[in-house]
Amino acid sequence: METPLFRIGFILFPGLTQLDMTGPYEVLSRLPGAAIHLVWKDLAPVRSDRGLAILPTDTFEHCPTLDLICVPGGPGINDLLTDDTVLSFIRHQSWGARYVTSVCTGALVLGAAGLLQGKRATTHWMSHGLLAEFGAIPVEARVVTDGRLITGGGVTAGIDFGLAVIAELAGRKLAEAIELGLEYDPQPPFGTGSPERAGPELVARMRALSARIQGVRLEQVRRAAAALEPA
Amino acid sequence: METPLFRIGFILFPGLTQLDMTGPYEVLSRLPGAAIHLVWKDLAPVRSDRGLAILPTDTFEHCPTLDLICVPGGPGINDLLTDDTVLSFIRHQSWGARYVTSVCTGALVLGAAGLLQGKRATTHWMSHGLLAEFGAIPVEARVVTDGRLITGGGVTAGIDFGLAVIAELAGRKLAEAIELGLEYDPQPPFGTGSPERAGPELVARMRALSARIQGVRLEQVRRAAAALEPA
Repeated sequence: METPLFRIGFILFPGLTQLDMTGPYEVLSRLPGAAIHLVWKDLAPVRSDRGLAILPTDTFEHCPTLDLICVPGGPGINDLLTDDTVLSFIRHQSWGARYVTSVCTGALVLGAAGLLQGKRATTHWMSHGLLAEFGAIPVEARVVTDGRLITGGGVTAGIDFGLAVIAELAGRKLAEAIELGLEYDPQPPFGTGSPERAGPELVARMRALSARIQGVRLEQVRRAAAALEPA
Repeated sequence: METPLFRIGFILFPGLTQLDMTGPYEVLSRLPGAAIHLVWKDLAPVRSDRGLAILPTDTFEHCPTLDLICVPGGPGINDLLTDDTVLSFIRHQSWGARYVTSVCTGALVLGAAGLLQGKRATTHWMSHGLLAEFGAIPVEARVVTDGRLITGGGVTAGIDFGLAVIAELAGRKLAEAIELGLEYDPQPPFGTGSPERAGPELVARMRALSARIQGVRLEQVRRAAAALEPA
């Protein structure tokens, strides 16, 4: 008997932070029957915020019904927040999907699609304060599950997220094997990977460096949230 | 004054484990002046062992002199171990480069290029026993530095590797900021990310699953090691 296909779709958009996607891709592609779809408006190579060029596999128009949809994050989400093509695709797929998921600031795109209302969720620490604009209940954790909504924290949290999904779908034994296969016994050299651990000075410096992009993001989030309100 | 370019080149080959490359890419691309080159025989999309299609940026013929060369790992290295085009490129670049590096089983390719003789090095746990075939001194650690040779352990160790390189090149302060930016405060859900932590049963199961590919690898490593011996 063949393993049934389990279709996993990532939105692949210009200006994504590629590790938000490539981390969980590496984990989830090890699920028996996994078929990974990288979905965008056309099939031309898509560039990450740091220039990595990745080929989409499907357009929004021709993507099959997904079992799991995942929106990664990155500076490029600012444009997605008010992009009707993207938001319609996510809303449409979220009906049929078993899981609706995000990594990093991809959560805000789910919010803009109206999928976070009343739900517990997380995102990159720097954008965590924006979750409430979409009616979400912000939770500080690396992976947050609320029914069939699963959100991961910033960038590298996508690896933890992927392992949590594997455990949920295929059991702990496979997840343990994948953790070993990927030698996921991390030793962050400086212990500054969360705002609490990094301390206020470094956090303030990072916020200052990102002030422009976070300013645009706030405007876009408010615009998207307003569009969701009943007329 | 402009920040001088620091050219970082990854070998991008069919059948690579993409996270071996995309993990350190995400970290190293944040180095001021970083220019990332993905180098292969031609510029057609290269597929990872799990189907991710990535575009190279340079051919071996037209790649500029690199400041840091990095060989990621994956099942595809088996072919690289006896590929003269690849080995010549690595040898040639290793003369001029400030750092010669690998992640995961990419270390074996450095070995086949003759660059591990007498050097302390690491690789993915399942291939660790093969390092000695190239005259390396195997070290069990996530990141091993021996002069200008820096090797990382399996797959996710590439993130730790990237942060170590940033600290070496640009100082601890930047590395701490990148660790926070990537929210690298990992929480491996099952604590099975190293053979010691996973225990003998799971290790034996993983070795059995990989027996075929490891068998071919051993033959290729011996062939490559023999080719390095003085006639």
